[in-house]
Amino acid sequence: MAESNHKVAVFGATGYAGALAADIVWRHPELELTAVTGRSETGLRLSDIHPRYDVPLKLEEPILDDIAERAGSALVAYPHKAAAPTVDALLKRGLKVVDLSADFRLSQAAYEEYYEPHPIPELLDQAVYGLTERHRERIKDAELVANPGCNSTAALLALYPVADLTDDVIVDVKAGVSGAGRGANDKTHFVSVVENVSPYSVGRHRHRAELEMELTGLTRISFATHLIPLDQGILATVYLQPKEPITQEQLFTRFTEYYASEPFIKVVKNAPGVRDVRDTNFAAIHPAVEQDTGRVIIYSAIDNLWKGAAGAAVQNLNLMVGLDEGAGLLTGQEINNARA
Amino acid sequence: MAESNHKVAVFGATGYAGALAADIVWRHPELELTAVTGRSETGLRLSDIHPRYDVPLKLEEPILDDIAERAGSALVAYPHKAAAPTVDALLKRGLKVVDLSADFRLSQAAYEEYYEPHPIPELLDQAVYGLTERHRERIKDAELVANPGCNSTAALLALYPVADLTDDVIVDVKAGVSGAGRGANDKTHFVSVVENVSPYSVGRHRHRAELEMELTGLTRISFATHLIPLDQGILATVYLQPKEPITQEQLFTRFTEYYASEPFIKVVKNAPGVRDVRDTNFAAIHPAVEQDTGRVIIYSAIDNLWKGAAGAAVQNLNLMVGLDEGAGLLTGQEINNARA
Amino acid sequence: MAESNHKVAVFGATGYAGALAADIVWRHPELELTAVTGRSETGLRLSDIHPRYDVPLKLEEPILDDIAERAGSALVAYPHKAAAPTVDALLKRGLKVVDLSADFRLSQAAYEEYYEPHPIPELLDQAVYGLTERHRERIKDAELVANPGCNSTAALLALYPVADLTDDVIVDVKAGVSGAGRGANDKTHFVSVVENVSPYSVGRHRHRAELEMELTGLTRISFATHLIPLDQGILATVYLQPKEPITQEQLFTRFTEYYASEPFIKVVKNAPGVRDVRDTNFAAIHPAVEQDTGRVIIYSAIDNLWKGAAGAAVQNLNLMVGLDEGAGLLTGQEINNARA
Amino acid sequence: MAESNHKVAVFGATGYAGALAADIVWRHPELELTAVTGRSETGLRLSDIHPRYDVPLKLEEPILDDIAERAGSALVAYPHKAAAPTVDALLKRGLKVVDLSADFRLSQAAYEEYYEPHPIPELLDQAVYGLTERHRERIKDAELVANPGCNSTAALLALYPVADLTDDVIVDVKAGVSGAGRGANDKTHFVSVVENVSPYSVGRHRHRAELEMELTGLTRISFATHLIPLDQGILATVYLQPKEPITQEQLFTRFTEYYASEPFIKVVKNAPGVRDVRDTNFAAIHPAVEQDTGRVIIYSAIDNLWKGAAGAAVQNLNLMVGLDEGAGLLTGQEINNARA
Repeated sequence: MAESNHKVAVFGATGYAGALAADIVWRHPELELTAVTGRSETGLRLSDIHPRYDVPLKLEEPILDDIAERAGSALVAYPHKAAAPTVDALLKRGLKVVDLSADFRLSQAAYEEYYEPHPIPELLDQAVYGLTERHRERIKDAELVANPGCNSTAALLALYPVADLTDDVIVDVKAGVSGAGRGANDKTHFVSVVENVSPYSVGRHRHRAELEMELTGLTRISFATHLIPLDQGILATVYLQPKEPITQEQLFTRFTEYYASEPFIKVVKNAPGVRDVRDTNFAAIHPAVEQDTGRVIIYSAIDNLWKGAAGAAVQNLNLMVGLDEGAGLLTGQEINNARA
Repeated sequence: MAESNHKVAVFGATGYAGALAADIVWRHPELELTAVTGRSETGLRLSDIHPRYDVPLKLEEPILDDIAERAGSALVAYPHKAAAPTVDALLKRGLKVVDLSADFRLSQAAYEEYYEPHPIPELLDQAVYGLTERHRERIKDAELVANPGCNSTAALLALYPVADLTDDVIVDVKAGVSGAGRGANDKTHFVSVVENVSPYSVGRHRHRAELEMELTGLTRISFATHLIPLDQGILATVYLQPKEPITQEQLFTRFTEYYASEPFIKVVKNAPGVRDVRDTNFAAIHPAVEQDTGRVIIYSAIDNLWKGAAGAAVQNLNLMVGLDEGAGLLTGQEINNARA
Repeated sequence: MAESNHKVAVFGATGYAGALAADIVWRHPELELTAVTGRSETGLRLSDIHPRYDVPLKLEEPILDDIAERAGSALVAYPHKAAAPTVDALLKRGLKVVDLSADFRLSQAAYEEYYEPHPIPELLDQAVYGLTERHRERIKDAELVANPGCNSTAALLALYPVADLTDDVIVDVKAGVSGAGRGANDKTHFVSVVENVSPYSVGRHRHRAELEMELTGLTRISFATHLIPLDQGILATVYLQPKEPITQEQLFTRFTEYYASEPFIKVVKNAPGVRDVRDTNFAAIHPAVEQDTGRVIIYSAIDNLWKGAAGAAVQNLNLMVGLDEGAGLLTGQEINNARA
Repeated sequence: MAESNHKVAVFGATGYAGALAADIVWRHPELELTAVTGRSETGLRLSDIHPRYDVPLKLEEPILDDIAERAGSALVAYPHKAAAPTVDALLKRGLKVVDLSADFRLSQAAYEEYYEPHPIPELLDQAVYGLTERHRERIKDAELVANPGCNSTAALLALYPVADLTDDVIVDVKAGVSGAGRGANDKTHFVSVVENVSPYSVGRHRHRAELEMELTGLTRISFATHLIPLDQGILATVYLQPKEPITQEQLFTRFTEYYASEPFIKVVKNAPGVRDVRDTNFAAIHPAVEQDTGRVIIYSAIDNLWKGAAGAAVQNLNLMVGLDEGAGLLTGQEINNARA
C-alpha cells in the first residue's frame, strides 16, 4: 500500500458521526478526504444528505479494493458487528483504522456479555482503546484504534482522576438524540422527544462495559441514561463517596494536575452546560465536593458527535499518522495556547 | 367570614403556577373562582396574559379586605418571604389557605438555614406540609397547608416507600424551565436553554431541606438539579444502596402496596418520561433494582406545574373544604377507577 | 342497530389524532367510549401507548361486526384511502361517522386530482364537509361528516369572512410535527426537525384542494407549508390584496360579526401565537390591515390535533348526535360564556 | 494611525452577534483580534460569557483612545443609536469600521421614519450598505460599511435577481430567537418561545426599510415576521406575481446566473431548511414557480448570526482590508471550489 496515510476514507459517512468525521477531514489542513461511502444514497454528494456540511464528494459503495487504492487511513462509522469485517479487510490492505463502533473496544468476554458473539475476536489484541487522554502513547503506534462510546467518554474523563478514591460510583447521563443515530423510530420521532425526558437502556447500558474495563478498581458501577430533547450533547453527572474525606481544593487540584497538558480538557470552575462545548472537541469538567455529604459530584460535558465520536476519531487519527493531535480540531492559536 | 370556602381567590395568578391554579379552579365543577390578583397587569383579564387558559376574570390588586369578602379559601402563589404576610392576613380573616411558596414548609431552623430569617415564625406550628399522599388526614383539618416544592414532590414520592432501606440517597433531578418561574433573565432566555443541559443550584438546592424534614432516617442526602430544554416536567432519578438485598419483585410490591389506593400515583412497569404525565396531576413512578449492583433506582416523573404546584394545591384544597380529593383534577371516570 | 349513538368507537386510536379523539370521548360527560382499535398494538391499553392520555381501554382489532354491536357512532382516524372501506362498512351498519381522513372531503374530481382514484365515489354525495362554523346545519343531519384538514381549517377560518374581498390569496402555513403523523422517518426524526424550519409539500399541498372547494371565488390560491420544531400547532398567515380599500376597523368588525356566536372562535386584538390555543379547541384569529400596502394579513392559530382534527371531530359528532356543540370540549362555564 | 487594519477590535462582544464576530476574527488566519469590549462583564474573558467560543481575551471597557492604539479596524455590535457615536469616534481615529446596527443602513429620512432622529446624519454619506453580493466594489473602498439587517439579508438575496418581474412582493419571515438579542424579557423567555410560533413586529418591521431602499421598483412590499422556537436561523418565504409568466427553468437560470460567481450563495434544487446553513456563512436559495398560480415563491435560508450578522461583517471587513472575501469563513478547499 503506497498511499499516504494522510489520505483518508470515511466509511458510513451518512450517519451523524460519519458525516461529521468526513466534514472534519474535509476541512482538515493536513488530511485529505479521498472517499466517503454510504449505503442507499450512493451517487449523491454528501452535502446533499447533510447540507450543513459542505462536503461535495459523492457517496460511493464500499468497494474496499477500490477505495484502498486511494486511502492510507480509514474512519469506520458502522454499527457494531457490521464494522468488524470492514475493519479487518482494511487492516489487511495496510490501512490505519479508527473504528467508531463497539466492535474493538472490549475484551471478547465483555463484548459477548454486553453485545453478542464477536465476529472476529482474533483482531481484538491489536486494538487500542482510543480514550486519547489515557492511552495516547499506545495510540501513536496503533494500526487499529477503537474509538470509545460517547457516554463512556463523558464518564471516564470524569473518573480517571478520582478512580482511586472509591470502589463505588453512579453515573447519571443526560444525552441528546443524535447519539441514538439516524435511524427513524418511535423513540427518535420529534413528538416523542420534545417536551420529554425519558430514561433509556434502563437496567443496563452497554457503555457501562467500558467503565468496567478501564476502571478495574470500581467494583460497583451504576450507569443510568436519559434521553433529552436536544440534538447534540452529553452531560454526565458522576457521584461517588470517597473513602477518605477530600476538600474541594484537593479535588480541584487533582483534576487540574491530571489534565494539565491536555489540549481538549477544560477543568472549569462552574458546572458546565453541554452548550458550552457544542460543536467543539472539548470536554468541560467540573469536580465538586458536596458540603452536606462530603460526596464528590463531577459534571462532565461533551458534544457526543465531537469528543464523543468524530472529533475524538480524528484526534486519534492525527496521532496515528504523526500529526499534531489537535490538527483540524483546534485553531492554530488554540494549539499554541494548549502548548503554552 | 360568611363566605363559602368553595369560593376561591388566587393570589399571584400571573406566574406559571398561579395561572394554572386559577385555571383549574375556574374549570372545577365545585369550586368557584372569585378573584385573581396580579402585580403590574391589574385590569387585564387573566386570559390576556395567559391566553391558553381561558379565564376571563380581571386581575385585581391584592386588597385583602375586599377579596376576603368574596372568598372563603385562597391559593397563594407568591415568592417565598412575600407570601407569609398575605397568608397571615388571610388566615386572620378566616380563609383556608394553601400557600405554594416555601414559607411554611419547614421548621424555623431549617427555613433559616436554607432561606433567610422567617418573617412570621409563630405561624409555622399550624401549617401542615402538603404532600397529600403522606399527610392526608392532617390536611383535611388544616387551615393552612404548605404546598411542597416541585423537586421535593418528585423525590419524596419516590422515597417514602423505601426510606427504611437505607440512610444514604442520591436524587438527580431533571427539570423544565417553568419551575424557574416567569422571571426573565439570562438563565431562562430561550437561547441559554435550548440545545443545553445545565446544572443549577450546584452545591445545595433548597428543596433538599424538605427531604431532610420528611425522611429523618436518611442522614446523607445528595440532591443535584439540572435544567432541561423543556417547558413543564420533572424527572427525578433516585439512587440508593439498600442495606439488605431486595429483589425487583419485592421492590415493586412495596410501591404498589404503598400507593394502592392513591388516585394520583401510577406505579408503572417501565421507566416513565415526563411527557407521560404532562398537563396532568399524576406522578408516574418506576422502581427498579439494578442487576449489576443491587442498587435501587427509582424514576419519578411529574408535571412540575400540576403535581409539583397548582394541581397539588387544588388536591389539598379539595380535602380542606370537604370535597373529593380528585375533584376538578380527574374526570368522573377516573375517580371511579381510582376508587375501584 | 339499537345502540345509542352516544356510544362511540374510535378507529385508528394509536395515531396522534385518534388517540386524542379517544381521550376526549373518554373524558366526555355525555359520550361513552366503547372501543378503540389499533393495528400492531392490539391487546395493549391505549394508555400504554399514549400514557399522557389516561384511557384504560384495550386496543382491539377492527372487527367491524363486533364493534358495531357496541357503538352507535364512530370516529375514523385512518390514513386516506384506508379510511373509505371502513367508513362504508360502518355506515351500512347504521353508525354515524366522522371521518378524519381526506377520503370524503372533496369531489371525486378534486380527490382524484390531488390524491388518487377514489375507492368508493358513490359515498361522496352523502358526506358533509365538517368545517362546523360554516356547515353547522347540514352537519346536524349528516350520517357522514368529513373532518377538514388541519391546515385547511386554519386557512378557511381566516378566509370565510373576507373571501369576497379578492380573488387572489396567499396562505403561508407554519405547522408542528404532529400534523405529519406518528410515522417515523427522516423528516420526523428529532434531529431533522430541531433547530430547523423547512418547507414541505413544496409546489402543491393537498390541503389546497379544500380551499378551492370552499372558496370558489378565489381563483388564485397560493399555499405554502413549513415544518416548525414544535409538537402541536398551526399558524396560518394569510395575505390578500382587497379590491377595494378596507380599514382596520371595518376588517375587524367583519370578523367579530361573522364569528359573533361561535363558541370556538376568538377574534383577538393581537396576533396570536399557537401556544395561545395549545391543547384547546379554540381558533384565535387576528385580522390586520397593513398600513404600508393596504394588504389584509390574517393570522389564524389552532392546535392541529384539536381544532385541526380530534377536537373538531368531537365538535361535529356532538352536533350529529344532538348534544351541545361544546360538550366535552368546553367547561360548563365556557359554554355559558359562549351563549351569553 | 499606524496600526495594521488586520488588527481588529470588536465592540459589544457580549451580545450574540458580537461574540460570534469576535470568535470568527479570533480563528481567522489573517486577522488578529486585539480587543473585545463589554459593558457589565469587564474583566471576564469572553469565553467565560460564551464558553462555546474559545476566545480567551478579557472584556475591556470601550476606551476608544486606548483601543484605537491597538487596532486598525473595528466591528461594532451595539444597538442602534448607541452605535453611531462609537463609529464616529473610530472613523476619526482612522479605523475602518463595519457597523452591525441599523444606524448607517438607511437614508436620514428613512431612518427617522422607521427609527428615530438620527444621531449623526452627516456620516450617512460615507457609509456603504453592506450587502456584499450587491455592493462589493464599493465595499472594497469603504471606510464605513453598514452591515444589513438579518431579515433584510434573507429577503434581499431572494429578491435581487427578480426585482424587475413585479412591483409587489410579500416577505414572510420565520426567525430564530437569537435575532431578538440577548436581552431577557417575556418574549425571549424559554417558556414563551417553546411550543410556539408567534408573529412579532406586526404592522411594520423595521427591516422593511432596507427593502424599500434597495429595491426601488417594488412599490408594495409586505413584510411579516414570526418568531420560531429555534436558536439561529431565518427562513424567508418570498411571494411575488410576475407581470409576465415565467417558467421554472427560466427562473432557476436567473438565479444561477445572478449568483454564478458568489462564494456564499447556494442556489439549490430543493427548498432549504435553516438547518442546512446553520453555523455557516452560506445563504441557500430555492426559487420556484407555483404551477397552480404562476406565482414565484422563493425560499431563502440563512443563519441570522452568520450571513445575517457576524459572518457578513467579516466578509465585508475582508474586502475592506484587501483580503480574500472568504478568508476565515470558508476553508481553503471551499475557496478553491468557489473560484473554480
